[in-house]
Amino acid sequence: MVILGIDPALTITGYGAVDYRRNGLLLIEAGIIKTSSKDSLAYRLSRLYKAVSGLISDIKPQVVVLEKLYVHYRHPATAYILGQARGVICLACAVKNVTLVEYAATRVKKAIVGKGLASKQQIQKMIISTLRLSKVPKYMDVTDALALAIAHGNIIRTKL
Amino acid sequence: MVILGIDPALTITGYGAVDYRRNGLLLIEAGIIKTSSKDSLAYRLSRLYKAVSGLISDIKPQVVVLEKLYVHYRHPATAYILGQARGVICLACAVKNVTLVEYAATRVKKAIVGKGLASKQQIQKMIISTLRLSKVPKYMDVTDALALAIAHGNIIRTKL
Repeated sequence: MVILGIDPALTITGYGAVDYRRNGLLLIEAGIIKTSSKDSLAYRLSRLYKAVSGLISDIKPQVVVLEKLYVHYRHPATAYILGQARGVICLACAVKNVTLVEYAATRVKKAIVGKGLASKQQIQKMIISTLRLSKVPKYMDVTDALALAIAHGNIIRTKL
Repeated sequence: MVILGIDPALTITGYGAVDYRRNGLLLIEAGIIKTSSKDSLAYRLSRLYKAVSGLISDIKPQVVVLEKLYVHYRHPATAYILGQARGVICLACAVKNVTLVEYAATRVKKAIVGKGLASKQQIQKMIISTLRLSKVPKYMDVTDALALAIAHGNIIRTKL
């Protein structure tokens, strides 16, 4: 089962796809989608939408995993802008008919490290060892996206 | 020139299209797009996206007008959800290649009533008289969308 984790943002969206197998999780692909602040909002959203739609077509995930709405943003403007990026990603999933799963950040941490208040470093360590990576991904956005994908893998495994 | 004002929301999105002519503004069409809270977020966003894309295809506006990001939301979660709805509308504009214009709420009020702190009632009155409507639109979302379209008409007229 292919699981695609996405960490949405208008400027840098991280993504990470893993193949969930009985004997473990395998990294398929991970990276970022960048849009330029010099472009219009509509253009940036359409770039993001096309990139995510393209990813779904290429990787063919059975499920896309996003972080659940976190309501305590200190900066509502950030929530608003982030919401716009997230909206076009949800739309891409609907159009491509891919199941969308959302987890709260604490659930993701718990599914990876075993506790909901794990540090970024603990999460990174677990991602490296689970996917047998040689080093930490350059972008935190990619780490966060991989965390979502791995968390989903762990959650379905423990439920089986 | 056809101007389409949109007041985005996940549950009820208002829209109003006016034809801007030298001798005044004419109402073309106005209404709401509703999605059900019983459906998934992805499905609701895809319904909204398709409805707005369809509107653009039918009405063929030269410009779509949205309210500019208002940063002082008391409820970040609302900003986040609203952002998702707004994102798919911006995307529809980009895909359909329609110019997107954004105005702050105070600019809209000023362009309609002449002052940025006009009341809802003053705005309603001006909309009724400008478009020669027989009564106030049932939904405030429609009034807000029409206000955006009329404001844009007034702004381009005074600039000409």
